[in-house]
Amino acid sequence: MKDYYVGAMKAVMLGISPKANLVDISHEIPPFDVMAGAWVIKNSAFLFPKETIHLVVVDSGGGDGEDKKPVALKIDGHYFVGPDNGLFSLLAETRDFQAHALTNTEYWHQEPASRTFNGRDIFASVAAHLQNGVELKELGPQKENLKNYRWALPITHSDGLQGWILHIDRFGNLITNIPEESVEELSRHKKVKIYVGNTILRSLDHTFADVPESEPVAYIGSSGMLEVAVNNGNAAELLGISKGASISVIWQ
Amino acid sequence: MKDYYVGAMKAVMLGISPKANLVDISHEIPPFDVMAGAWVIKNSAFLFPKETIHLVVVDSGGGDGEDKKPVALKIDGHYFVGPDNGLFSLLAETRDFQAHALTNTEYWHQEPASRTFNGRDIFASVAAHLQNGVELKELGPQKENLKNYRWALPITHSDGLQGWILHIDRFGNLITNIPEESVEELSRHKKVKIYVGNTILRSLDHTFADVPESEPVAYIGSSGMLEVAVNNGNAAELLGISKGASISVIWQ
Amino acid sequence: MKDYYVGAMKAVMLGISPKANLVDISHEIPPFDVMAGAWVIKNSAFLFPKETIHLVVVDSGGGDGEDKKPVALKIDGHYFVGPDNGLFSLLAETRDFQAHALTNTEYWHQEPASRTFNGRDIFASVAAHLQNGVELKELGPQKENLKNYRWALPITHSDGLQGWILHIDRFGNLITNIPEESVEELSRHKKVKIYVGNTILRSLDHTFADVPESEPVAYIGSSGMLEVAVNNGNAAELLGISKGASISVIWQ
Repeated sequence: MKDYYVGAMKAVMLGISPKANLVDISHEIPPFDVMAGAWVIKNSAFLFPKETIHLVVVDSGGGDGEDKKPVALKIDGHYFVGPDNGLFSLLAETRDFQAHALTNTEYWHQEPASRTFNGRDIFASVAAHLQNGVELKELGPQKENLKNYRWALPITHSDGLQGWILHIDRFGNLITNIPEESVEELSRHKKVKIYVGNTILRSLDHTFADVPESEPVAYIGSSGMLEVAVNNGNAAELLGISKGASISVIWQ
Repeated sequence: MKDYYVGAMKAVMLGISPKANLVDISHEIPPFDVMAGAWVIKNSAFLFPKETIHLVVVDSGGGDGEDKKPVALKIDGHYFVGPDNGLFSLLAETRDFQAHALTNTEYWHQEPASRTFNGRDIFASVAAHLQNGVELKELGPQKENLKNYRWALPITHSDGLQGWILHIDRFGNLITNIPEESVEELSRHKKVKIYVGNTILRSLDHTFADVPESEPVAYIGSSGMLEVAVNNGNAAELLGISKGASISVIWQ
Repeated sequence: MKDYYVGAMKAVMLGISPKANLVDISHEIPPFDVMAGAWVIKNSAFLFPKETIHLVVVDSGGGDGEDKKPVALKIDGHYFVGPDNGLFSLLAETRDFQAHALTNTEYWHQEPASRTFNGRDIFASVAAHLQNGVELKELGPQKENLKNYRWALPITHSDGLQGWILHIDRFGNLITNIPEESVEELSRHKKVKIYVGNTILRSLDHTFADVPESEPVAYIGSSGMLEVAVNNGNAAELLGISKGASISVIWQ
């Protein structure tokens, strides 16, 4: 928020829907990191009340025109507006959705939209019109398919499974792409070892406080994924792990 | 927002005007960078609905008492409250304005105001009173002139013009002080070369997606200024350019 | 706010209390720095209107179960919800308070709460129920005592007193644990010298603008504590001072 971009988008929305209640979720998704945006919206959207309009803009940076495919969606009673560049993959993969291309320029802020700021010129404006009661079908023709970045699934092999670190949160906790179900199945009958960087964890615990201060710990986090943390410390720094590093869960 | 300053200002406003709808634009203007604040407010203020009260505080850091000249302005149906230290230069240079010094301590949070936190003690309080319907003229005597930091204009010479990088946004895009009009005039009849750091750009494009990934590109940005970006990359890092660096547009 | 945590907490609150006016104070308290959180809430809470619900969550990181002691408080007509890990020490040490343990799971978001995200599963939910008019006593049994991290007081000796830097703000100003009263008493009758790092300040001034640009200055800040700043500069960087460094005030 050191730029005017967020302010301009809020301004456009309040110009169209002055009583709208704007709630900030995040303005700090790393540039071009569509999956980080997908991750944040997956873990917060459906906790909001039904009929919430979610404005989600992360530029994919690609030169292939993906971000020129603006879309609005209805999923489980929630609305989503943004580019069809994979941002909505995690929401739509297990749920029914209704999608419409945003071709009706009547609901844009300006036509032609600027070439570099669809957030202001299309998405904020359309989101505010939805808030005012405009229906999805008025925005443009229905779309059957969405761009689908499949979340890379962990690889299962005879000794266990291998996944990777998909997010490092502000506490330095390592969040993996290994869901609770996979680990529970593994750990029900067998002893588990977890390898991440040079660290070996010999058990699955419940929370950081299960181990002494400064010790690493593996547990199922609040998003339902396997996480590795250091009690009272920054796991990413202390274990020297970056986003994308691999993690193995082995049973014995 | 790691400090209590923003919280204290919001608190004072809600104490005076409990129904006010507070909308955050930016809390990350670099300390003492009055021009960065002027740039952000210029590019967002007038998109908000008329009658919006804009609270804009960036300390100029100088010891010359500028920040002891609190002011409220009305421009194009919008209100602005903050120090008269150049923050409002870009708004007022092309528009009529009505300005009043904030000398009436009745509308302050406390009198005397603390010596170091006019944001809480004067500006937030006055902004909330304006929201409640207090009129500008009640705040203090009218002022004819505002402190005017003129935005450095690009220098025109026989071969083209020379400007500078006035802002680097969170994507690393380089935003210059060269307005659309100057470049359009140049590029209508002639071939254009753009020099920035060690990089030479041989055309003016429309958006980053006009060039291959990782290539630099020049275009007119959403604020109406010439910008240089790298498709799917951080131009400031990749081209080694800092704020204030010069950029030349040459025609041939 | 690069994570979904803040979004999830706001979502839970709006699900329970859709008309609640959510006001962000800070999402940038350093991880595990309970005292930084205590400092921010002390300096902003009581400026808000009475009946405000303050949701304050900073994990202490300890393995001793402190953060498993969720509490709600009423102090001076304000409500506070968060972990009883010292966060509320500065509010409660000089004021009467009524505290209740949050044991009634009827007001939680989910039961059992996740082991790592009380913010979403207990605190946000309880805060929203308070906003809806639920009474403190319905949340759980009353508590007589709160965890009390006493703010380290400066040490008085025959020549003056010694304190430390408790916070460095975003401007790089050094905020000490030495309150106005202690310094005023000292400086009323005597000449004062202030030692911080390798710097010696020979007077107590009123504001940064009392000294030439780039010079260090000591004054009583807006929070009522002794501060050291550099006019138009970053004192922490220029004087090489970190949080926790000691500062001496000597009279002569």
